[in-house]
Amino acid sequence: MASGSMTMTTVVVETNLLSRQELRDRLQAVGDSRYHHRHPFHLRMHRGELTRGQLQAWALNRYYYQSRIPIKDSLLLAKSDDPAFRRAWRKRILDHDGDKDGYGGVEKWIQLAEASGLRREQVIPCTGVLPGVRYAVDAYLALVRDNSLLIAVASSLTELFSRDLISLRMDQMRLHYPYLTPGLAYFVGRLTQAPEDATFALDYVSTHAATRAQQEQVIQALEAKCAILWAQLDAIDYAYVVPGNIPPGAFVPDCD
Amino acid sequence: MASGSMTMTTVVVETNLLSRQELRDRLQAVGDSRYHHRHPFHLRMHRGELTRGQLQAWALNRYYYQSRIPIKDSLLLAKSDDPAFRRAWRKRILDHDGDKDGYGGVEKWIQLAEASGLRREQVIPCTGVLPGVRYAVDAYLALVRDNSLLIAVASSLTELFSRDLISLRMDQMRLHYPYLTPGLAYFVGRLTQAPEDATFALDYVSTHAATRAQQEQVIQALEAKCAILWAQLDAIDYAYVVPGNIPPGAFVPDCD
Repeated sequence: MASGSMTMTTVVVETNLLSRQELRDRLQAVGDSRYHHRHPFHLRMHRGELTRGQLQAWALNRYYYQSRIPIKDSLLLAKSDDPAFRRAWRKRILDHDGDKDGYGGVEKWIQLAEASGLRREQVIPCTGVLPGVRYAVDAYLALVRDNSLLIAVASSLTELFSRDLISLRMDQMRLHYPYLTPGLAYFVGRLTQAPEDATFALDYVSTHAATRAQQEQVIQALEAKCAILWAQLDAIDYAYVVPGNIPPGAFVPDCD
Repeated sequence: MASGSMTMTTVVVETNLLSRQELRDRLQAVGDSRYHHRHPFHLRMHRGELTRGQLQAWALNRYYYQSRIPIKDSLLLAKSDDPAFRRAWRKRILDHDGDKDGYGGVEKWIQLAEASGLRREQVIPCTGVLPGVRYAVDAYLALVRDNSLLIAVASSLTELFSRDLISLRMDQMRLHYPYLTPGLAYFVGRLTQAPEDATFALDYVSTHAATRAQQEQVIQALEAKCAILWAQLDAIDYAYVVPGNIPPGAFVPDCD
């Protein structure tokens, strides 16, 4: 009877486990409600309501996020003892850093900032970045550094939702802010990179979340990452939409 | 001649060092320009413009900061190998945690939140705290944890400026928000604790910053702490002043 009740316990646990599709649906629901495509600042951007100075502030602040992505991926690589996983994941560092100086996603983001009218020397030192943006990005590094590989991989799953946002953003930028058009190469690259990366990460978490508790960790990691993206836009929207709100020491646009 | 030029170098370094008064003046200048007594949300508060719901949001969010102060002070204690320093600094943990359940600054902050109309069960789990507030407070813990004892102590120097702000706040709360009056015990305690703590910390950094570079670290640590306090109010002002800005998952007041 002892082995019988153990079997029953096992069955209960397995029934409790979400199927791959159920897990995918839960992650989609998080994205639908919490991904930053719904943020007021993005809605303003897509309606063409932002000034050049506000777009400069966005590009300059988000550069801090972009510049930390390969650092985040390096922290993540360091968590894996599997050469095959590391080979697959290191593509991301290559995508952002490129093969040589002047290539890669970080450089392309600088070109977007330049298209907005900033000089690269204003952007690269990150001196004018809003403290609120810095704390949010640093929270992302801490999330990856201080948690399991499963949670770290799951926190990248916002890429499941990025292609639609990037497509819309490119269309609206060409329409409302044509001066940005020479700087859109970053988004062109991400249109194919992000879905590839998301597919890999989704497959990884679907395979490696072996218990319901781990599946819930995956979902919570995606929620946490959505909050990190959202909070960056909160800080930007607060500082640069209402006059008088730029905190001491932060970037001040020299144009409207 | 070699020893002559060495002497000259030494003289240059010593001349470069700020006097105690010069260091104090530099710290005061940071406070004058960057301490959060100038923040738009505090200005609204002191003009009596906040609703009860906005004060609830402030009390609930700032509880996360208050609740992390004794953790910050424990991290700081752990950096010192001097029993005399630790004996002096542990007063702060006592001030916040009290001698027994139901006493101490953390408990008094809960009483302030209750005076605003919140239940303590809403406050203590910190579930509704704004991500932007959480990241800023966590950045304070990281600042203390990951830097020298000198920088950690210097980051507490915002207490040099807190008495004036607390005095003004108590007056304005009694005037504009009389329902908060039963919850002001936290501030009464801080009126004497904060200046004592600031005097100790100022003396410590004045004595232990032995080079100009260390003095600059002290000043930068105070700037960094001012930014941490400021960013918390940015997040609160953004989320709770303009309708529609509360991020997913954060506290929603049930009253205006």
